Amino acid sequence: MTTRRRVTRVTGATKADVVDDIARESPLALAVNGVHLVTTMRTPGHDLELAAGWLVAEAGVRAAADIVAMKALTADPDRPDDVDTVQVSLAEGLAAPEPRAVLTSSACGVCSSRQGVSAAKPAGPLHSPGWSVAARTLLDSPAAMLARQRTFERTGGLHAAAIAAADGTVAGVREDVGRHNAVDKVVGRCLLDGRLPLTDRLLLVSGRVSFEIVQKALAAGAAGIVAVSAPSSLAVDLAREHGLLLVGFSRGSSLNAYASPELIGDPG
Amino acid sequence: MTTRRRVTRVTGATKADVVDDIARESPLALAVNGVHLVTTMRTPGHDLELAAGWLVAEAGVRAAADIVAMKALTADPDRPDDVDTVQVSLAEGLAAPEPRAVLTSSACGVCSSRQGVSAAKPAGPLHSPGWSVAARTLLDSPAAMLARQRTFERTGGLHAAAIAAADGTVAGVREDVGRHNAVDKVVGRCLLDGRLPLTDRLLLVSGRVSFEIVQKALAAGAAGIVAVSAPSSLAVDLAREHGLLLVGFSRGSSLNAYASPELIGDPG
Repeated sequence: MTTRRRVTRVTGATKADVVDDIARESPLALAVNGVHLVTTMRTPGHDLELAAGWLVAEAGVRAAADIVAMKALTADPDRPDDVDTVQVSLAEGLAAPEPRAVLTSSACGVCSSRQGVSAAKPAGPLHSPGWSVAARTLLDSPAAMLARQRTFERTGGLHAAAIAAADGTVAGVREDVGRHNAVDKVVGRCLLDGRLPLTDRLLLVSGRVSFEIVQKALAAGAAGIVAVSAPSSLAVDLAREHGLLLVGFSRGSSLNAYASPELIGDPG
Repeated sequence: MTTRRRVTRVTGATKADVVDDIARESPLALAVNGVHLVTTMRTPGHDLELAAGWLVAEAGVRAAADIVAMKALTADPDRPDDVDTVQVSLAEGLAAPEPRAVLTSSACGVCSSRQGVSAAKPAGPLHSPGWSVAARTLLDSPAAMLARQRTFERTGGLHAAAIAAADGTVAGVREDVGRHNAVDKVVGRCLLDGRLPLTDRLLLVSGRVSFEIVQKALAAGAAGIVAVSAPSSLAVDLAREHGLLLVGFSRGSSLNAYASPELIGDPG
Protein backbone atom coordinates (compact mmCIF):
# COMPACT_ATOMS: atom_id res chain seq x y z
CA MET A 1 0.00 0.00 0.00
CA THR A 2 3.04 2.26 0.05
CA THR A 3 5.85 3.11 -2.29
CA ARG A 4 9.06 5.08 -1.93
CA ARG A 5 10.17 8.38 -3.42
CA ARG A 6 13.31 10.50 -3.02
CA VAL A 7 12.32 13.64 -1.11
CA THR A 8 14.15 16.86 -0.24
CA ARG A 9 13.67 17.57 3.43
CA VAL A 10 14.12 21.20 4.54
CA THR A 11 14.66 21.75 8.27
CA GLY A 12 15.59 25.25 9.35
CA ALA A 13 18.69 26.10 7.32
CA THR A 14 19.45 22.59 6.06
CA LYS A 15 18.33 20.64 3.02
CA ALA A 16 18.75 16.87 2.88
CA ASP A 17 17.77 14.20 0.38
CA VAL A 18 15.92 11.36 2.06
CA VAL A 19 13.82 8.41 0.90
CA ASP A 20 10.24 8.62 2.11
CA ASP A 21 7.32 6.18 2.28
CA ILE A 22 4.29 7.47 0.40
CA ALA A 23 0.76 6.13 0.25
CA ARG A 24 0.05 4.60 -3.15
CA GLU A 25 -2.78 5.97 -5.27
CA SER A 26 -3.77 4.55 -8.65
CA PRO A 27 -6.91 4.32 -10.76
CA LEU A 28 -9.25 1.33 -10.57
CA ALA A 29 -11.92 0.87 -13.22
CA LEU A 30 -15.16 -0.86 -12.27
CA ALA A 31 -17.15 -2.62 -14.99
CA VAL A 32 -20.59 -4.01 -14.15
CA ASN A 33 -22.38 -6.41 -16.48
CA GLY A 34 -19.87 -5.53 -19.19
CA VAL A 35 -20.27 -1.74 -18.94
CA HIS A 36 -17.53 0.55 -17.61
CA LEU A 37 -19.23 2.34 -14.72
CA VAL A 38 -16.70 4.43 -12.88
CA THR A 39 -12.98 4.93 -12.41
CA THR A 40 -11.94 5.70 -8.88
CA MET A 41 -8.59 6.73 -7.44
CA ARG A 42 -7.71 4.38 -4.63
CA THR A 43 -4.87 2.79 -2.69
CA PRO A 44 -4.30 -0.63 -4.29
CA GLY A 45 -5.24 -3.64 -2.18
CA HIS A 46 -8.57 -5.27 -1.24
CA ASP A 47 -9.87 -4.26 -4.65
CA LEU A 48 -12.68 -6.82 -4.78
CA GLU A 49 -13.87 -5.57 -1.38
CA LEU A 50 -13.74 -2.00 -2.65
CA ALA A 51 -15.85 -2.88 -5.68
CA ALA A 52 -18.31 -4.87 -3.56
CA GLY A 53 -18.66 -2.11 -0.98
CA TRP A 54 -19.15 0.53 -3.65
CA LEU A 55 -21.99 -1.57 -5.07
CA VAL A 56 -23.65 -1.76 -1.64
CA ALA A 57 -23.81 2.04 -1.53
CA GLU A 58 -24.51 2.67 -5.20
CA ALA A 59 -26.33 -0.33 -6.68
CA GLY A 60 -28.53 -1.70 -3.93
CA VAL A 61 -26.36 -4.78 -3.41
CA ARG A 62 -27.22 -6.25 0.02
CA ALA A 63 -26.01 -9.86 0.04
CA ALA A 64 -23.06 -11.79 -1.37
CA ALA A 65 -25.48 -13.62 -3.70
CA ASP A 66 -26.33 -10.31 -5.40
CA ILE A 67 -22.88 -10.57 -6.99
CA VAL A 68 -22.73 -13.53 -9.36
CA ALA A 69 -19.10 -13.12 -10.39
CA MET A 70 -16.25 -10.76 -9.66
CA LYS A 71 -12.80 -10.70 -11.24
CA ALA A 72 -9.70 -8.53 -10.74
CA LEU A 73 -7.74 -7.82 -13.94
CA THR A 74 -4.21 -6.60 -14.53
CA ALA A 75 -2.84 -4.97 -17.66
CA ASP A 76 0.54 -6.65 -17.29
CA PRO A 77 0.45 -10.45 -16.70
CA ASP A 78 3.96 -10.21 -15.21
CA ARG A 79 2.65 -7.97 -12.44
CA PRO A 80 -0.40 -9.82 -11.11
CA ASP A 81 -0.67 -7.50 -8.10
CA ASP A 82 -1.18 -4.39 -10.27
CA VAL A 83 -4.96 -4.67 -10.46
CA ASP A 84 -6.45 -1.93 -12.61
CA THR A 85 -9.94 -3.22 -13.37
CA VAL A 86 -12.61 -5.13 -11.48
CA GLN A 87 -15.35 -6.81 -13.50
CA VAL A 88 -18.60 -7.63 -11.75
CA SER A 89 -21.71 -9.48 -12.85
CA LEU A 90 -24.80 -8.68 -10.79
CA ALA A 91 -27.61 -11.13 -10.09
CA GLU A 92 -30.68 -10.91 -12.30
CA GLY A 93 -33.07 -8.18 -11.22
CA LEU A 94 -30.35 -5.86 -9.92
CA ALA A 95 -29.81 -2.89 -12.22
CA ALA A 96 -26.33 -1.42 -12.61
CA PRO A 97 -26.18 2.31 -11.84
CA GLU A 98 -25.58 4.77 -14.68
CA PRO A 99 -21.99 5.09 -15.89
CA ARG A 100 -20.08 8.06 -14.49
CA ALA A 101 -17.80 10.17 -16.59
CA VAL A 102 -14.06 9.59 -16.27
CA LEU A 103 -12.01 12.04 -14.32
CA THR A 104 -10.99 14.53 -16.97
CA SER A 105 -9.88 15.42 -20.44
CA SER A 106 -6.45 15.40 -22.10
CA ALA A 107 -3.65 12.85 -22.06
CA CYS A 108 -1.05 12.37 -19.35
CA GLY A 109 1.93 10.03 -19.18
CA VAL A 110 1.47 9.19 -15.52
CA CYS A 111 -1.89 7.52 -15.92
CA SER A 112 -2.57 4.37 -17.81
CA SER A 113 -4.87 4.95 -20.76
CA ARG A 114 -6.64 1.71 -19.95
CA GLN A 115 -8.65 3.20 -17.08
CA GLY A 116 -9.54 6.29 -19.07
CA VAL A 117 -7.99 8.56 -16.47
CA SER A 118 -6.00 11.52 -17.65
CA ALA A 119 -4.93 14.88 -16.32
CA ALA A 120 -5.45 18.39 -17.64
CA LYS A 121 -2.32 19.80 -19.27
CA PRO A 122 -1.21 23.28 -18.24
CA ALA A 123 -1.62 25.80 -21.08
CA GLY A 124 1.89 27.28 -20.68
CA PRO A 125 4.93 27.35 -18.37
CA LEU A 126 4.07 27.20 -14.66
CA HIS A 127 6.70 29.74 -13.68
CA SER A 128 8.88 32.47 -15.20
CA PRO A 129 12.49 31.61 -16.17
CA GLY A 130 14.66 31.73 -13.06
CA TRP A 131 11.69 31.91 -10.68
CA SER A 132 12.19 30.52 -7.19
CA VAL A 133 10.56 30.70 -3.78
CA ALA A 134 12.24 31.02 -0.38
CA ALA A 135 11.90 28.08 2.00
CA ARG A 136 10.62 30.60 4.57
CA THR A 137 7.57 31.32 2.39
CA LEU A 138 6.85 27.61 2.05
CA LEU A 139 7.24 27.03 5.78
CA ASP A 140 5.11 29.98 6.89
CA SER A 141 2.32 30.30 4.32
CA PRO A 142 0.14 27.36 5.51
CA ALA A 143 0.02 28.88 9.01
CA ALA A 144 -0.86 32.26 7.46
CA MET A 145 -3.73 30.59 5.63
CA LEU A 146 -4.98 28.72 8.70
CA ALA A 147 -4.90 31.95 10.73
CA ARG A 148 -7.35 33.38 8.19
CA GLN A 149 -9.67 30.35 8.23
CA ARG A 150 -12.70 31.75 9.93
CA THR A 151 -14.74 28.63 10.39
CA PHE A 152 -12.33 25.80 11.14
CA GLU A 153 -11.70 26.83 14.74
CA ARG A 154 -15.39 26.64 15.47
CA THR A 155 -16.25 23.38 13.74
CA GLY A 156 -13.06 21.42 13.12
CA GLY A 157 -14.82 20.35 9.96
CA LEU A 158 -13.60 22.48 7.07
CA HIS A 159 -10.71 22.28 4.66
CA ALA A 160 -9.07 25.44 3.36
CA ALA A 161 -7.27 26.51 0.21
CA ALA A 162 -5.66 29.80 -0.79
CA ILE A 163 -3.11 31.39 -3.12
CA ALA A 164 0.37 32.49 -2.02
CA ALA A 165 2.90 34.59 -3.90
CA ALA A 166 6.65 33.96 -3.65
CA ASP A 167 6.93 36.93 -1.26
CA GLY A 168 4.68 35.09 1.22
CA THR A 169 1.50 37.10 0.60
CA VAL A 170 -1.53 34.86 1.17
CA ALA A 171 -4.86 35.73 -0.47
CA GLY A 172 -8.28 34.37 -1.34
CA VAL A 173 -8.74 31.89 1.52
CA ARG A 174 -11.75 29.65 0.89
CA GLU A 175 -13.20 26.90 3.09
CA ASP A 176 -15.36 23.85 2.40
CA VAL A 177 -16.20 20.42 3.80
CA GLY A 178 -14.60 19.08 0.60
CA ARG A 179 -10.88 19.58 -0.05
CA HIS A 180 -11.43 19.70 -3.79
CA ASN A 181 -14.29 22.22 -3.40
CA ALA A 182 -12.07 24.62 -1.45
CA VAL A 183 -9.54 24.46 -4.30
CA ASP A 184 -12.27 24.93 -6.93
CA LYS A 185 -13.51 28.04 -5.11
CA VAL A 186 -10.02 29.59 -4.99
CA VAL A 187 -9.33 28.83 -8.65
CA GLY A 188 -12.82 29.99 -9.63
CA ARG A 189 -12.29 33.35 -7.90
CA CYS A 190 -9.01 33.81 -9.81
CA LEU A 191 -10.69 32.89 -13.09
CA LEU A 192 -13.51 35.38 -12.53
CA ASP A 193 -10.94 38.08 -11.66
CA GLY A 194 -8.97 37.38 -14.85
CA ARG A 195 -5.99 36.12 -12.87
CA LEU A 196 -5.48 32.74 -14.54
CA PRO A 197 -3.04 31.15 -15.21
CA LEU A 198 -1.55 31.25 -11.69
CA THR A 199 2.00 31.55 -13.05
CA ASP A 200 4.61 32.01 -10.28
CA ARG A 201 1.96 31.50 -7.60
CA LEU A 202 1.39 28.67 -5.13
CA LEU A 203 -1.78 26.83 -4.25
CA LEU A 204 -2.04 26.27 -0.47
CA VAL A 205 -4.11 23.37 0.84
CA SER A 206 -4.89 22.40 4.42
CA GLY A 207 -5.02 18.65 3.92
CA ARG A 208 -3.55 15.85 1.88
CA VAL A 209 -2.61 16.09 -1.80
CA SER A 210 -4.23 13.56 -4.11
CA PHE A 211 -4.00 13.20 -7.87
CA GLU A 212 -7.12 15.33 -8.20
CA ILE A 213 -5.62 18.29 -6.34
CA VAL A 214 -2.49 18.27 -8.52
CA GLN A 215 -4.71 18.09 -11.58
CA LYS A 216 -6.62 21.17 -10.43
CA ALA A 217 -3.36 23.07 -9.79
CA LEU A 218 -2.09 22.18 -13.27
CA ALA A 219 -5.35 23.25 -14.92
CA ALA A 220 -5.00 26.59 -13.12
CA GLY A 221 -1.33 26.89 -14.19
CA ALA A 222 0.04 27.27 -10.64
CA ALA A 223 3.80 27.01 -10.02
CA GLY A 224 3.40 24.76 -7.00
CA ILE A 225 1.34 23.27 -4.19
CA VAL A 226 2.10 23.69 -0.49
CA ALA A 227 0.22 21.30 1.80
CA VAL A 228 0.05 20.64 5.51
CA SER A 229 -0.24 16.88 5.05
CA ALA A 230 1.01 14.03 2.87
CA PRO A 231 0.77 13.63 -0.91
CA SER A 232 -0.13 10.37 -2.63
CA SER A 233 2.22 8.57 -5.01
CA LEU A 234 0.24 9.60 -8.08
CA ALA A 235 0.19 13.21 -6.93
CA VAL A 236 4.00 13.13 -6.68
CA ASP A 237 4.38 11.49 -10.09
CA LEU A 238 2.03 13.91 -11.83
CA ALA A 239 3.73 16.94 -10.23
CA ARG A 240 7.14 15.64 -11.35
CA GLU A 241 5.97 15.06 -14.90
CA HIS A 242 4.95 18.72 -15.21
CA GLY A 243 7.68 20.40 -13.14
CA LEU A 244 5.25 21.53 -10.46
CA LEU A 245 6.76 22.28 -7.05
CA LEU A 246 5.08 19.92 -4.56
CA VAL A 247 5.63 20.56 -0.85
CA GLY A 248 4.02 18.46 1.88
CA PHE A 249 4.10 18.37 5.71
CA SER A 250 4.86 22.09 5.77
CA ARG A 251 4.61 22.76 9.49
CA GLY A 252 6.57 25.87 10.43
CA SER A 253 9.98 24.37 11.13
CA SER A 254 10.28 21.75 8.40
CA LEU A 255 8.80 20.58 5.12
CA ASN A 256 9.22 17.87 2.49
CA ALA A 257 9.61 18.76 -1.20
CA TYR A 258 8.30 15.86 -3.28
CA ALA A 259 8.72 17.40 -6.72
CA SER A 260 10.84 20.22 -8.22
CA PRO A 261 12.88 20.99 -5.07
CA GLU A 262 15.23 23.05 -7.27
CA LEU A 263 12.59 25.79 -7.23
CA ILE A 264 13.27 26.36 -3.52
CA GLY A 265 15.65 29.32 -3.59
CA ASP A 266 17.32 29.18 -0.21
CA PRO A 267 16.90 27.08 2.91
CA GLY A 268 15.55 30.11 4.84
CA MET B 1 -20.87 28.43 6.43
CA THR B 2 -21.86 26.91 9.78
CA THR B 3 -25.03 25.93 11.50
CA ARG B 4 -25.88 24.79 15.01
CA ARG B 5 -27.08 21.51 16.38
CA ARG B 6 -27.81 20.25 19.87
CA VAL B 7 -25.12 17.72 20.78
CA THR B 8 -24.64 15.34 23.70
CA ARG B 9 -21.12 15.72 25.02
CA VAL B 10 -19.70 12.78 26.98
CA THR B 11 -16.65 13.51 29.14
CA GLY B 12 -15.51 10.78 31.49
CA ALA B 13 -18.58 9.96 33.57
CA THR B 14 -20.68 12.99 32.61
CA LYS B 15 -23.12 13.63 29.79
CA ALA B 16 -24.15 17.17 28.93
CA ASP B 17 -26.33 18.70 26.24
CA VAL B 18 -24.54 21.52 24.46
CA VAL B 19 -25.09 23.49 21.28
CA ASP B 20 -22.31 23.00 18.76
CA ASP B 21 -21.23 24.76 15.57
CA ILE B 22 -21.16 22.40 12.62
CA ALA B 23 -19.86 22.93 9.10
CA ARG B 24 -22.72 23.16 6.64
CA GLU B 25 -22.94 20.69 3.79
CA SER B 26 -25.62 20.77 1.11
CA PRO B 27 -25.98 19.73 -2.51
CA LEU B 28 -25.27 22.13 -5.38
CA ALA B 29 -26.37 21.22 -8.89
CA LEU B 30 -24.33 22.51 -11.81
CA ALA B 31 -26.06 22.93 -15.18
CA VAL B 32 -23.97 23.84 -18.20
CA ASN B 33 -25.58 25.01 -21.44
CA GLY B 34 -28.93 23.81 -20.13
CA VAL B 35 -27.79 20.29 -19.20
CA HIS B 36 -27.52 19.08 -15.59
CA LEU B 37 -23.90 18.02 -15.32
CA VAL B 38 -23.12 17.10 -11.74
CA THR B 39 -24.38 17.49 -8.21
CA THR B 40 -21.71 18.06 -5.64
CA MET B 41 -21.88 18.20 -1.85
CA ARG B 42 -20.33 21.44 -0.69
CA THR B 43 -20.32 24.05 2.05
CA PRO B 44 -22.63 26.85 0.84
CA GLY B 45 -20.96 30.13 -0.07
CA HIS B 46 -18.86 31.31 -3.03
CA ASP B 47 -20.97 29.06 -5.22
CA LEU B 48 -20.22 30.86 -8.48
CA GLU B 49 -16.51 30.53 -7.71
CA LEU B 50 -16.98 26.84 -7.01
CA ALA B 51 -18.75 26.33 -10.34
CA ALA B 52 -16.13 28.37 -12.21
CA GLY B 53 -13.22 26.55 -10.60
CA TRP B 54 -14.77 23.16 -11.28
CA LEU B 55 -15.05 24.13 -14.97
CA VAL B 56 -11.35 25.08 -15.04
CA ALA B 57 -10.44 21.55 -13.95
CA GLU B 58 -13.13 19.67 -15.86
CA ALA B 59 -14.12 21.66 -18.95
CA GLY B 60 -10.97 23.39 -20.15
CA VAL B 61 -12.14 26.84 -19.04
CA ARG B 62 -9.08 29.09 -18.83
CA ALA B 63 -10.32 32.71 -18.91
CA ALA B 64 -13.31 34.61 -17.55
CA ALA B 65 -14.51 35.13 -21.14
CA ASP B 66 -14.93 31.36 -21.52
CA ILE B 67 -17.99 31.76 -19.29
CA VAL B 68 -20.66 33.81 -21.05
CA ALA B 69 -23.20 33.79 -18.22
CA MET B 70 -23.47 32.35 -14.76
CA LYS B 71 -26.46 32.45 -12.41
CA ALA B 72 -27.09 31.17 -8.88
CA LEU B 73 -30.63 29.87 -8.28
CA THR B 74 -32.58 29.22 -5.10
CA ALA B 75 -35.63 26.98 -4.69
CA ASP B 76 -37.22 29.31 -2.14
CA PRO B 77 -37.39 33.01 -3.16
CA ASP B 78 -37.73 33.92 0.54
CA ARG B 79 -34.31 32.43 1.25
CA PRO B 80 -32.08 33.99 -1.42
CA ASP B 81 -28.91 32.71 0.27
CA ASP B 82 -29.95 29.06 -0.08
CA VAL B 83 -28.37 28.56 -3.49
CA ASP B 84 -28.99 25.05 -4.79
CA THR B 85 -28.21 25.36 -8.50
CA VAL B 86 -25.69 27.23 -10.63
CA GLN B 87 -26.44 27.65 -14.32
CA VAL B 88 -23.54 28.34 -16.66
CA SER B 89 -23.35 29.14 -20.35
CA LEU B 90 -19.96 28.45 -21.89
CA ALA B 91 -18.51 30.43 -24.79
CA GLU B 92 -18.90 28.95 -28.25
CA GLY B 93 -16.30 26.31 -29.02
CA LEU B 94 -16.05 25.06 -25.44
CA ALA B 95 -17.68 21.68 -24.99
CA ALA B 96 -19.40 20.84 -21.72
CA PRO B 97 -18.09 17.64 -20.11
CA GLU B 98 -20.34 14.57 -19.98
CA PRO B 99 -23.04 14.55 -17.31
CA ARG B 100 -22.19 12.61 -14.16
CA ALA B 101 -24.67 10.42 -12.38
CA VAL B 102 -26.26 11.81 -9.25
CA LEU B 103 -25.17 10.52 -5.90
CA THR B 104 -27.45 7.58 -5.38
CA SER B 105 -30.79 5.84 -5.62
CA SER B 106 -33.84 5.98 -3.36
CA ALA B 107 -35.64 8.90 -1.73
CA CYS B 108 -34.62 10.71 1.45
CA GLY B 109 -36.38 13.48 3.34
CA VAL B 110 -33.17 15.34 4.21
CA CYS B 111 -32.19 16.11 0.65
CA SER B 112 -34.10 18.32 -1.70
CA SER B 113 -35.39 16.40 -4.68
CA ARG B 114 -34.49 19.37 -6.87
CA GLN B 115 -30.79 18.50 -6.93
CA GLY B 116 -31.46 14.84 -7.56
CA VAL B 117 -29.57 13.83 -4.45
CA SER B 118 -30.97 11.07 -2.32
CA ALA B 119 -29.70 8.55 0.17
CA ALA B 120 -29.93 4.78 0.27
CA LYS B 121 -32.55 3.57 2.73
CA PRO B 122 -31.56 0.85 5.19
CA ALA B 123 -33.34 -2.45 4.46
CA GLY B 124 -34.38 -3.02 8.08
CA PRO B 125 -33.84 -1.81 11.66
CA LEU B 126 -30.27 -0.68 12.39
CA HIS B 127 -30.19 -2.24 15.85
CA SER B 128 -32.03 -4.83 17.93
CA PRO B 129 -34.73 -3.65 20.35
CA GLY B 130 -33.09 -2.36 23.54
CA TRP B 131 -29.60 -2.38 22.01
CA SER B 132 -27.11 0.11 23.45
CA VAL B 133 -23.37 0.67 23.49
CA ALA B 134 -21.20 1.74 26.42
CA ALA B 135 -19.54 5.15 26.19
CA ARG B 136 -16.25 3.38 26.93
CA THR B 137 -16.53 1.44 23.65
CA LEU B 138 -17.18 4.65 21.74
CA LEU B 139 -14.26 6.42 23.41
CA ASP B 140 -11.73 3.61 22.96
CA SER B 141 -12.56 1.99 19.62
CA PRO B 142 -11.05 4.67 17.32
CA ALA B 143 -7.70 4.32 19.12
CA ALA B 144 -7.98 0.53 18.79
CA MET B 145 -8.49 0.96 15.04
CA LEU B 146 -5.61 3.42 14.66
CA ALA B 147 -3.29 1.07 16.55
CA ARG B 148 -4.03 -1.52 13.85
CA GLN B 149 -3.47 0.87 10.94
CA ARG B 150 -0.30 -0.50 9.48
CA THR B 151 0.49 2.18 6.94
CA PHE B 152 -0.53 5.51 8.42
CA GLU B 153 2.45 5.77 10.75
CA ARG B 154 4.81 5.49 7.84
CA THR B 155 3.10 7.83 5.39
CA GLY B 156 0.66 10.07 7.25
CA GLY B 157 -1.40 9.73 4.12
CA LEU B 158 -4.06 7.10 4.65
CA HIS B 159 -7.55 7.09 6.07
CA ALA B 160 -8.86 4.05 7.95
CA ALA B 161 -12.22 2.42 8.52
CA ALA B 162 -13.23 -0.66 10.53
CA ILE B 163 -16.15 -2.37 12.25
CA ALA B 164 -16.66 -2.39 16.03
CA ALA B 165 -19.08 -4.44 18.08
CA ALA B 166 -20.77 -3.07 21.21
CA ASP B 167 -18.29 -5.05 23.33
CA GLY B 168 -15.42 -2.99 21.86
CA THR B 169 -14.07 -5.66 19.51
CA VAL B 170 -12.56 -3.97 16.44
CA ALA B 171 -12.21 -5.92 13.18
CA GLY B 172 -11.59 -5.56 9.49
CA VAL B 173 -9.38 -2.46 9.47
CA ARG B 174 -8.91 -1.14 5.94
CA GLU B 175 -6.84 1.82 4.72
CA ASP B 176 -7.00 4.04 1.66
CA VAL B 177 -6.03 7.51 0.44
CA GLY B 178 -9.79 8.07 0.09
CA ARG B 179 -12.02 8.12 3.16
CA HIS B 180 -14.96 6.73 1.19
CA ASN B 181 -12.79 3.96 -0.31
CA ALA B 182 -11.71 2.75 3.14
CA VAL B 183 -15.40 2.50 4.09
CA ASP B 184 -16.27 0.73 0.83
CA LYS B 185 -13.53 -1.85 1.48
CA VAL B 186 -14.79 -2.58 5.00
CA VAL B 187 -18.41 -2.88 3.86
CA GLY B 188 -17.37 -4.92 0.84
CA ARG B 189 -15.53 -7.42 3.05
CA CYS B 190 -18.63 -7.82 5.22
CA LEU B 191 -20.82 -8.29 2.14
CA LEU B 192 -18.52 -10.98 0.75
CA ASP B 193 -18.49 -12.73 4.13
CA GLY B 194 -22.30 -12.70 4.30
CA ARG B 195 -22.25 -10.33 7.28
CA LEU B 196 -24.58 -7.61 5.97
CA PRO B 197 -26.60 -5.88 7.30
CA LEU B 198 -24.28 -4.60 10.05
CA THR B 199 -27.09 -4.62 12.64
CA ASP B 200 -25.86 -3.69 16.16
CA ARG B 201 -22.40 -2.89 14.81
CA LEU B 202 -20.54 0.40 14.44
CA LEU B 203 -18.62 1.79 11.51
CA LEU B 204 -15.36 3.42 12.66
CA VAL B 205 -13.78 6.14 10.50
CA SER B 206 -10.52 8.01 11.01
CA GLY B 207 -11.60 11.33 9.52
CA ARG B 208 -14.58 13.57 9.09
CA VAL B 209 -18.13 12.38 8.46
CA SER B 210 -19.83 13.72 5.34
CA PHE B 211 -23.24 12.93 3.90
CA GLU B 212 -21.64 10.25 1.75
CA ILE B 213 -20.19 8.35 4.73
CA VAL B 214 -23.55 8.29 6.52
CA GLN B 215 -25.16 7.10 3.30
CA LYS B 216 -22.68 4.22 3.09
CA ALA B 217 -23.33 3.27 6.73
CA LEU B 218 -27.08 3.26 6.12
CA ALA B 219 -26.75 1.14 2.99
CA ALA B 220 -24.74 -1.35 5.06
CA GLY B 221 -27.34 -1.26 7.85
CA ALA B 222 -24.89 -0.26 10.61
CA ALA B 223 -26.19 0.89 14.00
CA GLY B 224 -23.83 3.84 14.20
CA ILE B 225 -20.71 5.71 13.11
CA VAL B 226 -17.82 6.60 15.40
CA ALA B 227 -15.42 9.20 13.98
CA VAL B 228 -12.27 10.91 15.16
CA SER B 229 -13.25 14.23 13.55
CA ALA B 230 -16.25 16.43 12.83
CA PRO B 231 -19.45 15.60 10.96
CA SER B 232 -21.12 17.93 8.48
CA SER B 233 -24.63 19.32 8.96
CA LEU B 234 -26.13 17.03 6.34
CA ALA B 235 -24.41 14.00 7.89
CA VAL B 236 -26.05 14.88 11.22
CA ASP B 237 -29.47 15.42 9.65
CA LEU B 238 -29.38 12.19 7.67
CA ALA B 239 -28.24 10.19 10.72
CA ARG B 240 -31.08 11.70 12.78
CA GLU B 241 -33.67 10.91 10.15
CA HIS B 242 -32.77 7.22 10.29
CA GLY B 243 -31.98 6.82 14.00
CA LEU B 244 -28.30 6.13 13.35
CA LEU B 245 -25.95 6.78 16.28
CA LEU B 246 -23.45 9.43 15.12
CA VAL B 247 -20.40 10.08 17.30
CA GLY B 248 -17.68 12.58 16.38
CA PHE B 249 -14.48 13.86 17.99
CA SER B 250 -14.08 10.56 19.82
CA ARG B 251 -10.65 11.03 21.34
CA GLY B 252 -10.18 8.81 24.37
CA SER B 253 -11.47 11.08 27.12
CA SER B 254 -14.45 12.72 25.43
CA LEU B 255 -16.79 12.52 22.46
CA ASN B 256 -19.77 14.29 20.91
CA ALA B 257 -22.95 12.40 20.02
CA TYR B 258 -24.66 14.22 17.15
CA ALA B 259 -27.52 11.80 16.58
CA SER B 260 -29.29 9.11 18.66
CA PRO B 261 -27.41 9.76 21.95
CA GLU B 262 -30.05 7.60 23.69
CA LEU B 263 -28.21 4.57 22.30
CA ILE B 264 -25.26 5.30 24.59
CA GLY B 265 -25.88 2.99 27.52
CA ASP B 266 -23.81 4.49 30.27
CA PRO B 267 -21.33 7.36 30.53
CA GLY B 268 -18.43 4.91 31.02
